[in-house]
Amino acid sequence: MDGTRVFLANSNQHINIGKETHSRNGFVYVKNPHLDLMEEDILYHLDLGTKTHNLPAMFGDIKFVCVGGSPNRMKAFAQFMQKELGHEGEDNDLKNICAGTDRYSMYKVGPVLSISHGMGIPSISIMLHELIKLLHHAKCCDVTIIRIGTSGGLGVEPGSVVITDVAVDSFFKPQFEQVILDRVVTRSTELDQDLASELLKCSGKDFPTLIGHTMCTYDFYEGQGRLDGALCCFSNEKKLEYLKRAYNAGVRNIEMESTVFAAMCRLCGLKGGVNSGNAFDVPN
Amino acid sequence: MDGTRVFLANSNQHINIGKETHSRNGFVYVKNPHLDLMEEDILYHLDLGTKTHNLPAMFGDIKFVCVGGSPNRMKAFAQFMQKELGHEGEDNDLKNICAGTDRYSMYKVGPVLSISHGMGIPSISIMLHELIKLLHHAKCCDVTIIRIGTSGGLGVEPGSVVITDVAVDSFFKPQFEQVILDRVVTRSTELDQDLASELLKCSGKDFPTLIGHTMCTYDFYEGQGRLDGALCCFSNEKKLEYLKRAYNAGVRNIEMESTVFAAMCRLCGLKGGVNSGNAFDVPN
Repeated sequence: MDGTRVFLANSNQHINIGKETHSRNGFVYVKNPHLDLMEEDILYHLDLGTKTHNLPAMFGDIKFVCVGGSPNRMKAFAQFMQKELGHEGEDNDLKNICAGTDRYSMYKVGPVLSISHGMGIPSISIMLHELIKLLHHAKCCDVTIIRIGTSGGLGVEPGSVVITDVAVDSFFKPQFEQVILDRVVTRSTELDQDLASELLKCSGKDFPTLIGHTMCTYDFYEGQGRLDGALCCFSNEKKLEYLKRAYNAGVRNIEMESTVFAAMCRLCGLKGGVNSGNAFDVPN
Repeated sequence: MDGTRVFLANSNQHINIGKETHSRNGFVYVKNPHLDLMEEDILYHLDLGTKTHNLPAMFGDIKFVCVGGSPNRMKAFAQFMQKELGHEGEDNDLKNICAGTDRYSMYKVGPVLSISHGMGIPSISIMLHELIKLLHHAKCCDVTIIRIGTSGGLGVEPGSVVITDVAVDSFFKPQFEQVILDRVVTRSTELDQDLASELLKCSGKDFPTLIGHTMCTYDFYEGQGRLDGALCCFSNEKKLEYLKRAYNAGVRNIEMESTVFAAMCRLCGLKGGVNSGNAFDVPN
């Protein structure tokens, strides 16, 4: 699973989940009528807030957000962006904006925000709720978000990059089931094909790049057919049979965050992408 | 949700999920026949392995494992244990055993291991798979594991500690649904009442302590009835109605890791507990 890169492209269209409707004017929007009534919005897990920080001044120019699981990698990515954008001289000492908490790490380089999200759907979901509110409060417009992740490849050359066209669950369905109180709501995980194509065009010749479905699981071991967890009650044959079915359904890699990423970006007007690199092929 | 402590007590009994059976001799056991056939077991996310590290020498004396979400808090807990056990002089400079990775942090103080697990079921699940294999390879015996967590209280005084007797899901059921390949397996989340009682006896007079059910969700915002996420499509009345039903079902606090913790410890012969402190009451 480690050492892989992925791009997910996300549709800018949205599903209306509340009574309110939103115009598609490029703004990042929240879908929560309660927020307008709140005097202060505290983004607990980012250690930021509307009363303690001037969010429009700090983040109003953001156009790209890159997210990934590991804090160290997201710092390394921000340092890479410093070089790429010629920001090296300005501030060599990259500051972790979320230094007041150890839940996530965040770095800003010009219009690019780099944030870690930990591992798994619940962890990235908390970060996305607070990031989306942050971009909303900062009045950010036309924001593209890209998950730069690691994943296990399925029938693809180790080291290749999969650009996700659609995120699917363990049953190969293009959906994310969100429990709201005790009601299960199904959300779409379809992604913007234009952005996926655009990302494919950016690929160089250093590693193979392809577009495919990405399967998102709640578990690294039993859920992904690994034989080396503390618990394993299936045979190698059963595992291969499942992975073959996944491949035939269009799955080219497996990770643990893409469905909720796709669903939330889609709902909130964020043009999203996932770009995963595969260190090794899962069947091996 | 922050600032809370919790104890979960876990039954030492197990459910047989494979063909093999295990005697209840106090050893931490894996339930995976494939592991015996492997030449090397790499614990990827802990940066440890059976060929690169002498696990029995490093960890064989472990009797207590304490786990919590935040790396900083688990370091602080290890420092506290240094003082409590009189280990201060021996090694003032507490070393992060997992320093080679930024996925988890791990500290050892005598027979006590302190490990962070990040946020949510998938994140703690990866850590538990590798921790259980670590304790198995190290031939550890009679190990007690305690989650020292934060949670949102339900009808309890802010600052109080809930010792979990049973972890329940969003539908108040005492179970954890594990997807294995694409099959859903239901596992018990019942906990050892003796350990819960023992933990209750340890409580001081500094804060109220009680035994109750702990609800475990996949989401911090929509799943826990919070009105301040980026997405919210329910009213305050609907939220209160749901939380009232949870209270009537015996739930006294809500967090994001207890069901899989209870299920995995139960299956692998780890005597487990969860001890959560509630910084504030969810309905407020």
